[in-house]
Order: sequence, then C-alpha cells, then structure tokens
Amino acid sequence: MTAMDERDTARAGGTAPAALEADDRRYVRELALQARAASRKLATLTRADKDRALEAMARALAAEADQILAANAEDVARARERGMSQALLDRLTLNPERVRQMSEGLLAVAALPDPIGETVSMSRRPNGLEIGRVRVPLGVVGMIYEARPNVTADAAGLCLKTGNAVLLRGSSDALNSNRAIASVLAAAARDAGIPDGALQLVDRPGHGAAGAMMEAVGLIDVLIPRGGRGLIERVVAEARVPVIETGVGNCHVFVDDSADLDEALAIVINAKTSRPSVCNAMETLLVHRNVAEAFLPRAAAALRERGVELRGCPEARRIVPDMAVATEQDWHEEYLDLILAVRVVPDLDAALEHIAAYGTRHSEAIVTRDYVRARRFLQEVDAAVVYVNASTRFTDGFEFGLGAEIGISTQKLHARGPMGLEALTSVKNVVYGSGQIRV
Amino acid sequence: MTAMDERDTARAGGTAPAALEADDRRYVRELALQARAASRKLATLTRADKDRALEAMARALAAEADQILAANAEDVARARERGMSQALLDRLTLNPERVRQMSEGLLAVAALPDPIGETVSMSRRPNGLEIGRVRVPLGVVGMIYEARPNVTADAAGLCLKTGNAVLLRGSSDALNSNRAIASVLAAAARDAGIPDGALQLVDRPGHGAAGAMMEAVGLIDVLIPRGGRGLIERVVAEARVPVIETGVGNCHVFVDDSADLDEALAIVINAKTSRPSVCNAMETLLVHRNVAEAFLPRAAAALRERGVELRGCPEARRIVPDMAVATEQDWHEEYLDLILAVRVVPDLDAALEHIAAYGTRHSEAIVTRDYVRARRFLQEVDAAVVYVNASTRFTDGFEFGLGAEIGISTQKLHARGPMGLEALTSVKNVVYGSGQIRV
Repeated sequence: MTAMDERDTARAGGTAPAALEADDRRYVRELALQARAASRKLATLTRADKDRALEAMARALAAEADQILAANAEDVARARERGMSQALLDRLTLNPERVRQMSEGLLAVAALPDPIGETVSMSRRPNGLEIGRVRVPLGVVGMIYEARPNVTADAAGLCLKTGNAVLLRGSSDALNSNRAIASVLAAAARDAGIPDGALQLVDRPGHGAAGAMMEAVGLIDVLIPRGGRGLIERVVAEARVPVIETGVGNCHVFVDDSADLDEALAIVINAKTSRPSVCNAMETLLVHRNVAEAFLPRAAAALRERGVELRGCPEARRIVPDMAVATEQDWHEEYLDLILAVRVVPDLDAALEHIAAYGTRHSEAIVTRDYVRARRFLQEVDAAVVYVNASTRFTDGFEFGLGAEIGISTQKLHARGPMGLEALTSVKNVVYGSGQIRV
Repeated sequence: MTAMDERDTARAGGTAPAALEADDRRYVRELALQARAASRKLATLTRADKDRALEAMARALAAEADQILAANAEDVARARERGMSQALLDRLTLNPERVRQMSEGLLAVAALPDPIGETVSMSRRPNGLEIGRVRVPLGVVGMIYEARPNVTADAAGLCLKTGNAVLLRGSSDALNSNRAIASVLAAAARDAGIPDGALQLVDRPGHGAAGAMMEAVGLIDVLIPRGGRGLIERVVAEARVPVIETGVGNCHVFVDDSADLDEALAIVINAKTSRPSVCNAMETLLVHRNVAEAFLPRAAAALRERGVELRGCPEARRIVPDMAVATEQDWHEEYLDLILAVRVVPDLDAALEHIAAYGTRHSEAIVTRDYVRARRFLQEVDAAVVYVNASTRFTDGFEFGLGAEIGISTQKLHARGPMGLEALTSVKNVVYGSGQIRV
C-alpha cells in the first residue's frame, strides 16, 4: 500500500475450473520465463541505457495521451454501468493532467541515482580474499494492484531503473487503460533498446493469473501487492513467492501530559484530516488523562469543524459528552475516512499497551516534551515509522527523500517503511581471490 | 542450510487428524504469544545484559554436559534401533568435545559486537525532520531444523544476542537431546534475568507443530529452515510466515582457458573433496574446451586418488575414457558426496548458460587470468556468492568474517549468502520532529 493508493476495495476471488487454472499457470509461466530472460540482460545495462529508455517512455506517454484517455474512458463507462462507487471511479479515471503526471514521474525516476552496481562494502580477509557486497536487481518483480492505472507506469519506471523485469497485474476494471499504458511503454522501451519481456502486462480475465503469480516460485522473485486490506491479506496468505507486505495503517497519535497542546492540536488535525483516505492517516487518538480535560474539548471542536466523527471510550465521553461510543472493534478499525476513535489513557505504559495490542506496525506518533518518554516511545513501539512531535502523514517515499515510492512496507524483512529504489534491489557477494583454498 | 549441516534427510510429513491439528495450532499459538511478550522486553536489553546471559548459558552447558550426553545417548540408541544411517547417526551423536564446542560457541557470540541499536543512517529533511534508521530485532524467530542438536544452542545464542525470542523446532530424532539442551539454556537465561519465553522448544510429536509454525502469521516474524532439500522445499512451499530460504547448493567451478592450471587444480580438489557433504562444495566442473585435453586428465587422476567418482559429458569422456556417463539429471544433482559431474564447454557464454540453467544460486566460481571474463562472470552470474580464483568452500559466515552463522541464504530478499547477526535484525525508522505537519 502506498500513501497514494486511497484503498481500492478488494474483490472476492472466484474459483476457476481446473482447465482454466492450468491455462493461467501456463500463461504466467510463459510470461515469467520471458521476464527472466530479459532480467539477465537488464542486470547488465548501464544507467545511461536505462535513463534513455525512461525518457523515451515518458515522451511516448505524453504523445499517446489521447489513445490512453480513450481506453480509460471505456473502462470508466463500463465501471459506471456496473455501478462502481464514486470513490473508486475517481481512482480509475484518468485526465490529461494525470497522464502528464505519469509521464513526469518517469522523468523523475530517470533523474534519480542508479542504485545498481554500488559496492555496499568491501573487506579483505586475513587470507587475502577480498569480499565485496554489490547491489544488484532482484530479478523478476510481480505487481498485483487495484484500480489506479497510474501504478502501471510508476511500477514500470521503478523496475526498469533498478534493472528488474516486471509483471504487471492490475485490476480488470482498468484493463483497457492498463493495456494502452503498458503497450505504449513497452514499445517505447523496445525502441530504446530494452529487451523484450522487461515490462509485461498480465492480461487474462479472472483471478487465476494472480493466483498463478503467487505460486510461481523460482520464476518470480518477489510479489508486491498494492491496494486494500483484502487484496494484501489474500496475497500474504496465499503466496508462495516471497512477498513485500505493504501496509494496512491503523496509526495512533499519543498526546502525553507534557505535550505542547497547541502543537498537539496541529499534529492531530493534520494526521486525521489532511488526507483521511490514506494509510498514514491517524485512526485512533490516545490522550494522557492529566491533559484530557484541557485537550479533548479543543481537539473535538476543531476536528468536528472539519467534519470528523468521534467515537470515544467512557472517559473521553465524560469529557466530550456528545461523542459516540467506541466499541472494541473501533480500536481495530482502519477507517480511511473522517472518523476517529478516542481513548483516554492513564500513562505512557497504557498508550504503549494499546498500540502494541491494536496497531498494525505502520506509523505511530507521540507528542511530548519529556525526554524519557520520547526515548521510550521511539525504542518500545514496534512499527515501521515512529515519530516524536510530528504528524504520521510524513510516512511517504517522497517525504523521506527517497525520490520515489513503490509502496510502504509494514513487514520486518528486507525493507521497512517507505520503499524507494533500494527496496527493489538485492546484494550479491563478489569474491576476488588469487588461488585461495579452504584449509 | 549452513555449511555445517551436512544435510540431514527430510522425512515425509504425515497428515494428523483435525483435532490434533487444532491442538498443535493452539499449542504453537500459546508459545508464540509468550515469545512475543518476551520479545518486547528482549528488544530493550543492553548488550551487557545479553552477554552476561550468554556467558551463564555457556557455563551451564559445560556444567550439565553429563545430563545432556545421557539424554543424547537415549536418542542415539533409539535411532540405531530404528535403523538410522551411519551418516545421520554421526550428526545426531554428541560427545564431550561437541558439548564443549556448543558452550564455546555461546562465548564467541557474547564476544561479538551487538548490532541492535546501531543507527544505520540519519538525515535531516528540508522541513527540519530528522529521520534515522535504527537496527532492531526481528521479534520472534522460528527455527525448523533436523537432526543436529547443536543447532539448538547455536540458534538460541544468536537469537538472544540479537534480542529476538526464538521457537526451536528440532527433529523428533533429537528430542531428548534438544529437551536437555533447551532446558539447561532456558534455566540459565532465566537466572541471568532474561524474560521467560525468550527461548522455547516446540515440544510436540508429529509434524503438526511445524505446520502450525508455518501458518502463524502475525505471531512469528520469520522462519529459518535448516536441513536437507526436502525440509527446505516443504517450508518454502507451505509457509505463510516470511521464510529465509537457506540453500541447496549445486555449485560450479568453471576453468577458463586462460586459467593457471595448477591453481585451477588446487581449487577444484578443494571445492570437491575438502568436505563433500556441505552445500558450498562443488557439484559440477565446467572446463573450457581449449584446456580440456591439458586439464581433465590431471584433474581426473587427482580427484580419483581422493575417491571421487566422475560423470562426464561425451567430450569429457572422450578425453578421460573411463568416466561414467552424465545424464541430464546429473547437471541438476546436489550430490553432497564424492561424485562430480564434468562438462566441457566451448566458451564462457556456454558456462554462463549452464550455470543459469542448472545452478541453485548458491556459490559459483571461475578460474581465469582474463580480466574481461572475470568481470563478466562476477556481473552476469546470479548467485549469493560469486568467486574469481578461489574455492566455493569459503561461503561460510566465519570465513566471511561475520563471527557467526545462522545459515546461508540463497534468496534475494533481506539477506543473501552467509548470514550472521545482522540477518537477524530489522530496521526501524525513527523521526525526530518539532511539531511538523504535512502540507
């Protein structure tokens, strides 16, 4: 999940007949073998080769904008007929400005340094062996994502820059859009000397192809799902290929009794209301009992003024009487909406307990002026990003200075938090010898 | 798989009745919840706390050697009754020297620097936010391994040093040994102030408990299988918890026509015969056609003198006529024995093709004096470790200077090649603000 996704809804998967499944497996295997062959060549390209192709792809998107918009209009018309919600339609719909942004995104990726080939470390052993660790591509990346067609261009650009081949499996709702974008990009890449198979759309109806990608051990090196909770949980549960889990964000802000309450108010408003539909938005506000009387009425008024519905624990409701009741389920909820759960806690320990019990290890913040509590919060909260005195909304590849974002990892292996180009790389050990044998 | 494992054979898993499976799940869940509670405390221990415990554990192993040896003798007697092979019995059997080595291994881990808490990077953003990346434990590590009881002590030590709780699932053949070792270690750790639940043996008959560990998403952060190909493939195929795949090693040495043939001979003999049962041993020798006549007869004589059976391609058999025929299967085989497949290839490209087609991405070597070919081999071979002019046998945490080894990763995510303490850590993003909100 990236901060940009605004959560598409996952669909329930239907069971395809066995013959279709075998077909899907054959189809995905064929694509993946082409991708693997391409990836061996991609790994040896220079930065200049790759940037030239990215620039050509950016120009092609701009030049073919009309064709892409026409294809997108078909998707949108069909989706509207089927009664797609306005929120999802917004994500699906392209316009000239959005196509321009895709094109500029590719240019921005071209301008980033190339991580591939960097020697991360190099040391000489007592026997004279020189052992280096060199950054290399992952190989074949599988993207499984929902209705936003811009992911097709973003992922294609980031994977090409890092020398990876990519299999793009978007939502069937965006199929015409994705076909148009992928074919424009693939043609431009090919003309710029990128091997065939570097960038392929997984273009099959039904859910079988995504299932086949999840099983493709040895063919696909990593799967990155991007979308709503349902999609991500399905991929994590079913995939045998390694997955980078991108995250569900049940994020908290804890207002300590030593907080500057004006600062706390600004952070709370920003974390909840600046973009409520994204994964780094706050979902539960925790307030230290000693400042609850002073802080909660002000916060409630400011939040309600911005349309936020509040659901509180008994103590919060005593202080702000017209607040709805928060149930156990509310502490678990990632609303992605203008709704906020509110809980008064007796101390930092209770806040830490609450976050450990209900948090999704995404982004957690404390507002405090107390050195010891700031330090404890940073050390003891187990999350991808932990903040002191800042809004959780900063969890984002661009805000972190990565220059790009392929998603926000909430797992602990390989990459954690906002993922830029480096998350799409591995490290190879290279050993320079002069005839050494092991004794 | 570590270079130390000498491959236990995997057993076929039986299907337990549903009630037993539910029991296994409950049991593993209970252990994992205790482990998770312990891991929160372990994450905050200082190096001094952890080293003191490791030293106490080392002393306890030495003091309780008799008890451990008696328990091991029971396992060995039972295994012998059941007709276990001599090779497996060797791995299972402890003696005073091996117990001493386990104890010394814990002291060696205590002497290593503590990776936890290290600030990997820290930068200041234009808005004044300071964003750091700090090394933290993974949380709960699950080890699933075969007959070698020393893994129990090794894994317990490495996980404690890195602040992780560990669930140890050894082979049922070593159950008495593992019980004795784990209970001695857990008692010593507890007395030294380590929280209960930091180190637990998964002590259930049958395969259900291992299966329950593989499903324990959210409870176990990573699974590390150690053992034979069957075990590793089962865990990779079935686990929903992230896995670090430790590797099957179908390793190659390519002798180029520019090689110093004396150097090549020494490397080939070392890579095949110094310890044929380990994953970093050479399994296939590739020889450039231009030096095959000069090199193969010498190599064949030297290898046969050391008991190696050779299986060759037609061209190799023309040069060394009494060589057995290599079938397609031989190119795939990880013999782990004094058997070597031999193939004559026309050039570097053919060697690279062979390695890409049959290699398991573990360790690959070229012997050459040609700068361009050395560079191409390093760049184009996709493997955890790639060597120029050195034996593949160096793929090992100790030889790489890591001071320890939890296994050798052949996957590309998170860790690749020999894994020391750092592979058992994650990175947390910590953000120091002064009231920043996102505009």
